[in-house]
Amino acid sequence: MNNYKVGVVGFRGYSGAELVGLLTRHPQVEPILLEHRQDSDPQPQPIGARQPVSVQCSPEAVKNEHLAVVFLATPADVSMELAPQMLDAGAKVIDLSGAFRLRDSGTYSRWYKEKHSAPELLSEAVYGLPEFCRERIAQAHLIANPGCYPTAANLAIQPLIASGVIDRGAGVVCDAKSGVSGAGRKPRLKTSFGEVIDNFSAYSVFDHRHVPEILMESAIEEAELSFTAQLIPIHRGILETIYFRSRSLSSAEALLDLYKRRYQDEPFVRLYPLGTLPDIRGVDRTNFCDIGVRFDPATGRAVVVSAIDNLVKGAAGQAMQNMNLVLNFPETEGLL
Amino acid sequence: MNNYKVGVVGFRGYSGAELVGLLTRHPQVEPILLEHRQDSDPQPQPIGARQPVSVQCSPEAVKNEHLAVVFLATPADVSMELAPQMLDAGAKVIDLSGAFRLRDSGTYSRWYKEKHSAPELLSEAVYGLPEFCRERIAQAHLIANPGCYPTAANLAIQPLIASGVIDRGAGVVCDAKSGVSGAGRKPRLKTSFGEVIDNFSAYSVFDHRHVPEILMESAIEEAELSFTAQLIPIHRGILETIYFRSRSLSSAEALLDLYKRRYQDEPFVRLYPLGTLPDIRGVDRTNFCDIGVRFDPATGRAVVVSAIDNLVKGAAGQAMQNMNLVLNFPETEGLL
Amino acid sequence: MNNYKVGVVGFRGYSGAELVGLLTRHPQVEPILLEHRQDSDPQPQPIGARQPVSVQCSPEAVKNEHLAVVFLATPADVSMELAPQMLDAGAKVIDLSGAFRLRDSGTYSRWYKEKHSAPELLSEAVYGLPEFCRERIAQAHLIANPGCYPTAANLAIQPLIASGVIDRGAGVVCDAKSGVSGAGRKPRLKTSFGEVIDNFSAYSVFDHRHVPEILMESAIEEAELSFTAQLIPIHRGILETIYFRSRSLSSAEALLDLYKRRYQDEPFVRLYPLGTLPDIRGVDRTNFCDIGVRFDPATGRAVVVSAIDNLVKGAAGQAMQNMNLVLNFPETEGLL
Amino acid sequence: MNNYKVGVVGFRGYSGAELVGLLTRHPQVEPILLEHRQDSDPQPQPIGARQPVSVQCSPEAVKNEHLAVVFLATPADVSMELAPQMLDAGAKVIDLSGAFRLRDSGTYSRWYKEKHSAPELLSEAVYGLPEFCRERIAQAHLIANPGCYPTAANLAIQPLIASGVIDRGAGVVCDAKSGVSGAGRKPRLKTSFGEVIDNFSAYSVFDHRHVPEILMESAIEEAELSFTAQLIPIHRGILETIYFRSRSLSSAEALLDLYKRRYQDEPFVRLYPLGTLPDIRGVDRTNFCDIGVRFDPATGRAVVVSAIDNLVKGAAGQAMQNMNLVLNFPETEGLL
Repeated sequence: MNNYKVGVVGFRGYSGAELVGLLTRHPQVEPILLEHRQDSDPQPQPIGARQPVSVQCSPEAVKNEHLAVVFLATPADVSMELAPQMLDAGAKVIDLSGAFRLRDSGTYSRWYKEKHSAPELLSEAVYGLPEFCRERIAQAHLIANPGCYPTAANLAIQPLIASGVIDRGAGVVCDAKSGVSGAGRKPRLKTSFGEVIDNFSAYSVFDHRHVPEILMESAIEEAELSFTAQLIPIHRGILETIYFRSRSLSSAEALLDLYKRRYQDEPFVRLYPLGTLPDIRGVDRTNFCDIGVRFDPATGRAVVVSAIDNLVKGAAGQAMQNMNLVLNFPETEGLL
Repeated sequence: MNNYKVGVVGFRGYSGAELVGLLTRHPQVEPILLEHRQDSDPQPQPIGARQPVSVQCSPEAVKNEHLAVVFLATPADVSMELAPQMLDAGAKVIDLSGAFRLRDSGTYSRWYKEKHSAPELLSEAVYGLPEFCRERIAQAHLIANPGCYPTAANLAIQPLIASGVIDRGAGVVCDAKSGVSGAGRKPRLKTSFGEVIDNFSAYSVFDHRHVPEILMESAIEEAELSFTAQLIPIHRGILETIYFRSRSLSSAEALLDLYKRRYQDEPFVRLYPLGTLPDIRGVDRTNFCDIGVRFDPATGRAVVVSAIDNLVKGAAGQAMQNMNLVLNFPETEGLL
Repeated sequence: MNNYKVGVVGFRGYSGAELVGLLTRHPQVEPILLEHRQDSDPQPQPIGARQPVSVQCSPEAVKNEHLAVVFLATPADVSMELAPQMLDAGAKVIDLSGAFRLRDSGTYSRWYKEKHSAPELLSEAVYGLPEFCRERIAQAHLIANPGCYPTAANLAIQPLIASGVIDRGAGVVCDAKSGVSGAGRKPRLKTSFGEVIDNFSAYSVFDHRHVPEILMESAIEEAELSFTAQLIPIHRGILETIYFRSRSLSSAEALLDLYKRRYQDEPFVRLYPLGTLPDIRGVDRTNFCDIGVRFDPATGRAVVVSAIDNLVKGAAGQAMQNMNLVLNFPETEGLL
Repeated sequence: MNNYKVGVVGFRGYSGAELVGLLTRHPQVEPILLEHRQDSDPQPQPIGARQPVSVQCSPEAVKNEHLAVVFLATPADVSMELAPQMLDAGAKVIDLSGAFRLRDSGTYSRWYKEKHSAPELLSEAVYGLPEFCRERIAQAHLIANPGCYPTAANLAIQPLIASGVIDRGAGVVCDAKSGVSGAGRKPRLKTSFGEVIDNFSAYSVFDHRHVPEILMESAIEEAELSFTAQLIPIHRGILETIYFRSRSLSSAEALLDLYKRRYQDEPFVRLYPLGTLPDIRGVDRTNFCDIGVRFDPATGRAVVVSAIDNLVKGAAGQAMQNMNLVLNFPETEGLL
């Protein structure tokens, strides 16, 4: 017997489908598919395949089905439209889009190049990175699930900023690489097979809309951070190579220790021993963020590598981690 | 100094772009880009990159530029619209679509599920497989460049049928696999990266629109041929595995000899020694069709493997081979 | 609390590592790594990663650890050496190699091109395809886990042979395609990245060592079956396209019904509705074998497509399914 | 008629095979294969495929065949053994390994972790980056063909250092990504298909043996440069994302102009217009190095992206460009 029903809008997209898969295996919830707009074709399914119940998305459906949580795996404009309705209907909302991640509508407009249509919700939305603020998440009604790039970036960068080990004048470089699923399932030339395969390209330098989430959560200035987003010809996975300089760090061990202390009780952050580095393979289909370091004390050059599965810790897995907090389940339920 | 100017419509698609690349390196022609409808975004180009001249596609352009040949690397419906205009304007037309490959409009309608809008041209179009009918091609005004699958299939199957070695009752299986570029550059869900990568799927069994080209050119009955089209997660290349049974063949050598005799003077058909088989790598970016055989005399089981680059011998390369015939250049010019 | 300890030899190979992952999530067993020969480098692991206990592989270890089952994810020659020792030490053995799949040493020698070094075990080994003989598996001491290709082939072909719908004279074609992990983790030129990527090749025609498993289990004559093994540039997954002719089948529905009746109670065989076909994506990381059909009553041409994940239903998953039978757990435990 | 014969040792490796292909199409040379040690299996070839003449590698062969140039596409230790012999036999030597790229044996030992066995040749070897020193190359007897990573790095970084626009205290980050062919054709676990596909990993931070070539040619201090080498799951291509800070640059235009002035007469360096960036696709199978820039004048953050085909401009193409200089052919012969 499942304790709660939870709804998913946008269940045919890559993040949404991943989320439905995770929720189906979660022992205490039952996912309900909320059909909103059929922007993607359904996949053919085997005869008799167990599919979650599907109902039309509406405030009434939320009430009738007694949905405790509604996940919005939708574009930002759809999330801005649906979030108020779902909240009014009594559900808590976990939004996987960028709609509610920033603190004010001006910042949103600057980075998303469009007006925010539900600015009144920005102040009550809680940024859902559990490693940074799980208590507030547990109390929230509207959770802004973090972007995939910022999840890997903030878990690696924030401890560096907070501990003051970075030589600030030299800045921080975050060279980020992502699999193609991060761009969603909607067909576009840039994500069609023939354009991506056998290729590697930088598609956003300095101005990626995920940048303000890093500035906000890691407390780093825009002028300090050089962030580049690049496309790897793989389906899923993010690896970020972060460069900085430090005169205060004494050794690679000291750098690794900084992360050890910070994350010793975190179930989803794993550290690599000195001399090794994480890769995308190691986090495939997991909710882990893997971190490894390299430091050259003679010159002060430092590198931190951070890897996640963009569809799990970078989207659906973290969303379910947030649901576990909201519904008072063990935080790791269904995720280990 | 180039002898002729030739036009290319559809130069942003995969076949069209490949063709422009080949024509640019051809010593005796100058390609002119004929802008028709901008269905694909242009790629960013380096500063000063040498690009062919581009003009608006029209009968006047054909006359003003004195285009000897116009290539149509367009969908069938566009080819049916443009071919008559280009012919009237005095150019010879080499069409890479399926518009003019079949002999009558009824057969076209059956396989393409739409009415033919220029049926009067079907009787004068010549099927452009040079290995089968280069003399007629050299005289033609309208050349229907063969489909990619039928090119690999007919070069392998026709000699078997013609020589009578196949046990006809057992039929012929053609298990065909293609890279994704065969589906064109237009963004669609089925050819988006996330759907194709890490996957392999059969997408057409018996009813692929290329089937009638095999029936026509190899003189095989539809009831005899089991043709399946499948998608490999690679950009370019076709490999077809062809199965039949033979009581009349005495040995694998005899099977290979049959091809040797047939293709001994053909510059673009290569045979593999017994014990080896061609693969897609071996024909990458070449105009070759590579063929290898396996035969078990004790049981009569035979396999023929045929490989081409679908964008070269299966499209742009063969189109230029046909142009060489039409313009009376050496047939291999620019292709070896 | 886990009911049983089970050992895994060859846990660094692709099948072995997959098996350790599955066993770790199985609620009633604890896997023990049996270190035999370190032919592969270990992967770097995060600090504190939960790894199963590892001991040196020996009969004493089997006794000391009270191993109920020992899995051999080893090459055939190693399995022939270890199986008798593990059986003598009191464990049941599930062997993932080809060592014990065939019924006599002469057949083994013919297909594997080497002498069998433990022929006395061939008569007591049970072929571990649960859908065909789960009662005998449950009683067995030595289980020969089926090959990956034959698993997909037999589940599709045996019902056709058994029901007599195939026109036997025309033969059966099994055009099989596999991801690269089927060849194991040991570095070889043929499976190195540069040789496989952007390529597709047939590597075995008629003489693949998995062929006799199909002859044996589907009761088909060697002369009737044309089996080709081909390499797809993906890591995991098998798709087999099976061709035959039938004068006795009345319709595609009748063909599908034949499978429905046969597999209606099977938890791991799924059928696709008419008009759709399975693909490799659909079985990724599952223990399912997905089957779909196409039949043209006018001509008698039939195609059956069968797909599995070669590392799960084709290796580790099926091995755990067999363990569930041997240890009297629900057959699907840990696999759905 | 070809003017010169040139020999290739290591013609079965990826760089060597690429070089043989380029030389075969060069109008003025005839390649001779010099069989040294058969470390790789030959590929099956079609019957009658035109293969260059092959002779055993020896000083006598150099004399008998009157080889004007010998290319060594061999590991560094083999190059150190063969180079003196080939030079003594009267050939000019273009070495594609790292054996002769550094200026002294101490630096070599530090980065290559082994003793140099032909240190007397280090002083006469000329570093073969034509854009930096084509006059010296034209006169050289022993040319050290540059490493793949340093080719892309130096063409991008050296103009920045030389012009003094970099804020030196903040350092330079070179985040480099390469296709797998850069690691050679010899089978190893790290480059086997199953380890690389669906993955992305950093394999060398600060200590890649190509680093000293960048320090040497760009005149940058080791302490300033943070260089990371990473593996993309593609066969060929390198993209490097280079980060620095500048208070002296006034605009992105000024940054691009710096490259325009430097490379205006270079046939193989192409620049991308502001607002666009090069990718690996754009240099595939070409000898170009494509460079694009991004600069934010408000904060001083700068990014330069540099892309090459590692097997062409990063190896075989540049080697043939050097041969063109040595043999007094037009520098672009066979390369455009």
